[in-house]
Amino acid sequence: MSSAEDIARAARQAYEDSQLVDPSERDVALRSIAQHLSNHRHEILAANAKDMEAASALLAQGKLSSSLVSRLDLTRPGKFDAMLQGIQEVVDLPLPTGRTTYAKELDEGLELYRVTCPIGVLLVIFEARPEVVVNIAALAIKSGNAAILKGGKESIHTATLLSSLIQQSLSSGKLPPALIQAVSSREEISALLSQEKYIDLVMPRGGNALVQSVKDQTKIPVMGHADGICNIYVDEGADLEMAKRIVKDAKLDYPAACNAVETLLLNASTVDTLWPELAAHLISASITLQCDEASLSALHSSPVTQSLPELQKYVHAASPEAFDTEYLCPEMAVKVVPSVSAAIQHINTHSSHHTDSIITPSEQNAGTFIRGLSSANVFWNASTRFADGQRYGLGTEVGISTGKTHARGPVGLEGLCIYKWVLKSERREGSVVGEFGSGQGKKQYTHKQLSKESPF
Amino acid sequence: MSSAEDIARAARQAYEDSQLVDPSERDVALRSIAQHLSNHRHEILAANAKDMEAASALLAQGKLSSSLVSRLDLTRPGKFDAMLQGIQEVVDLPLPTGRTTYAKELDEGLELYRVTCPIGVLLVIFEARPEVVVNIAALAIKSGNAAILKGGKESIHTATLLSSLIQQSLSSGKLPPALIQAVSSREEISALLSQEKYIDLVMPRGGNALVQSVKDQTKIPVMGHADGICNIYVDEGADLEMAKRIVKDAKLDYPAACNAVETLLLNASTVDTLWPELAAHLISASITLQCDEASLSALHSSPVTQSLPELQKYVHAASPEAFDTEYLCPEMAVKVVPSVSAAIQHINTHSSHHTDSIITPSEQNAGTFIRGLSSANVFWNASTRFADGQRYGLGTEVGISTGKTHARGPVGLEGLCIYKWVLKSERREGSVVGEFGSGQGKKQYTHKQLSKESPF
Repeated sequence: MSSAEDIARAARQAYEDSQLVDPSERDVALRSIAQHLSNHRHEILAANAKDMEAASALLAQGKLSSSLVSRLDLTRPGKFDAMLQGIQEVVDLPLPTGRTTYAKELDEGLELYRVTCPIGVLLVIFEARPEVVVNIAALAIKSGNAAILKGGKESIHTATLLSSLIQQSLSSGKLPPALIQAVSSREEISALLSQEKYIDLVMPRGGNALVQSVKDQTKIPVMGHADGICNIYVDEGADLEMAKRIVKDAKLDYPAACNAVETLLLNASTVDTLWPELAAHLISASITLQCDEASLSALHSSPVTQSLPELQKYVHAASPEAFDTEYLCPEMAVKVVPSVSAAIQHINTHSSHHTDSIITPSEQNAGTFIRGLSSANVFWNASTRFADGQRYGLGTEVGISTGKTHARGPVGLEGLCIYKWVLKSERREGSVVGEFGSGQGKKQYTHKQLSKESPF
Repeated sequence: MSSAEDIARAARQAYEDSQLVDPSERDVALRSIAQHLSNHRHEILAANAKDMEAASALLAQGKLSSSLVSRLDLTRPGKFDAMLQGIQEVVDLPLPTGRTTYAKELDEGLELYRVTCPIGVLLVIFEARPEVVVNIAALAIKSGNAAILKGGKESIHTATLLSSLIQQSLSSGKLPPALIQAVSSREEISALLSQEKYIDLVMPRGGNALVQSVKDQTKIPVMGHADGICNIYVDEGADLEMAKRIVKDAKLDYPAACNAVETLLLNASTVDTLWPELAAHLISASITLQCDEASLSALHSSPVTQSLPELQKYVHAASPEAFDTEYLCPEMAVKVVPSVSAAIQHINTHSSHHTDSIITPSEQNAGTFIRGLSSANVFWNASTRFADGQRYGLGTEVGISTGKTHARGPVGLEGLCIYKWVLKSERREGSVVGEFGSGQGKKQYTHKQLSKESPF
């Protein structure tokens, strides 16, 4: 087995070599990978059966969740073809590199371009979903990056075979096979996290514990999201039917998602009017409510809710941690706040800066909410569940970032790119800065906008 | 004295509060700061005199360099006015926030905008140049960020007074005074580096040791540059006069700058022809050359150089570390490589990914060089000294970044910004994701390009 340093160095070399290959080869490679995986469908499903067997045993012992086992299963109808279709979707996306985002003439014959390019070497750590190997590999190849992949250990047979088939396919084309490498153990990850000389970005997909542990171990920049504590604030004058629709969708459409709502904030003016009706609707959908004192007492005194038989089952007094909890199930915290400013203050303090939404008829309050929040996604009269790369029209997403630099919210191919500054002199004598300045005979920078694309 | 946590929390609160203030107030505040500093010119110069006195004593003891003492001096002709003029230049820059960079309709009446916004709270650590306090404060205010500033200890009296005058000026306007805070001790920096709950980005300006020490101590993203080991590669067929001009400018225009050239790479075909002429030119400009074997023996055997009286003084055999050294003085390393690919390999391994340049008449080799390098700035027939925010037309620069994410090369106001995703539903019933999908009666996302700016 190679050492972490060998793996990282090989990835770096493959990345550097690949920059001299025409970018059109990336789509050629992706189509060939799709074909190669299709040709080896039976072997892949056999490897997956091994993973499923081990996982089913652990499920029976109560050591794995059924949802994890279900996500592991590549034999579910349509799953394998969807995986291959995912590669085609990446082929169909426009190339994210080589785009000119700034172009200026500095002097006659001296032209500056800012051109998008790959970041370099990515280390991606993800959950036990075998198709994610293929998905991330496709995005890395399309964007011109090298990637080192580590999937959840439950998918080890499938993931190892998939990545070796991807390497096989690459080795028959023009891109270096080491562009995509897989590692299988946690120890290798720890060793890779110290390879900042070769690795440019770490993307941990998974829970808070994983992201924190990665951040603790590395000086490499980390892009990802820890928790997904999303809030909905129901403002004064909010429409009851709209609130019912949005809150229910945000909680129940997929309760385990990071963009599901976890905290409901209520303007004080709605506590005795809208709130009991909304609560009755949520209770009837079997949603458990962890209520602060004001929202709790309103339900106990309102004729709409006080005699509901399910009240005792679904309505509870919130603990102090309730507003910092990612429930990931049909349960949410509820709190009354006096104003939109108080809602902003609560969210900036307690949310994970992922996605927060306001329900209000007031354009002014919506504007205040949108400007005042430091979250990656801020919505007005819409469910938090919209925070997703596909829904945003970005194509396949690499993940969701709650960081404050580089890329935030759903991250598509663009988030795997950065830029380089390219300066080209066409002057016979070349260009030097000593010619410019304020003295006699010195030139001035022209700083003329250029409309053209970089020639490189 | 406040604790680091108090300072960081105050900065966060000031940042959050400031987001609800109209952005036009930022320029109002900047003009008022310029006026306030101008009104207190004598006090500021008196504080500067104290710093200068202490520094001169250290200079006499050989404990400080004369260049540091000179940079400290605010009384040099034009320096104070240039500092105030710098504020006006930031006022004149366009607002970097509130710009829509992506706009799509997801459904009729459901509109998505990606809007630029401040990063949040910045921690900036910089050298002993008092005017940098004012410069960074102006950039932070203009971009809507809060900043905690720590200047070099030699400028403590001037820097402390400048930042307290900035706070005073802010407190008479609409922005929170704690937007700009200064700290003065190294211990405070260490404590601030653990405030990742409140601080979003650290920008260390200074040497490699500072940047590494900051990275070792923090989980907050770090933007900056360590070394500036810039290379120039003289390709086959390069024009001698152009090479002389560019290499001399790149080394001598400002040898202590991070964008000065440190390594000269020569294509093997130039060793007996162009190289001795170029070397003679550099030697006549008192540049010391640390040569590898091939470039050294060429100088000893060429009729152009072998009998030069200065040869022994200026030409030496390179040590193994020569190609990883930032000389910051009229000295450079020289190495012969067989091809543009070998030059790329050398640069990707040894350069600090700051700025590297090729001198060549070949468009093909220039293209290979530009695509093959992973440096932030890659030039063709131009001096490395062009890598600078002012020269690039970005306006005042915050610093230079050699990282691979967020911002690279000269970083202007744009590098202090990120974006948030704003989703706005104008539908009477609000918008939920449960309506979309592939089943019967489900809606499809429209993903229509919108041309309009975000209304927020």
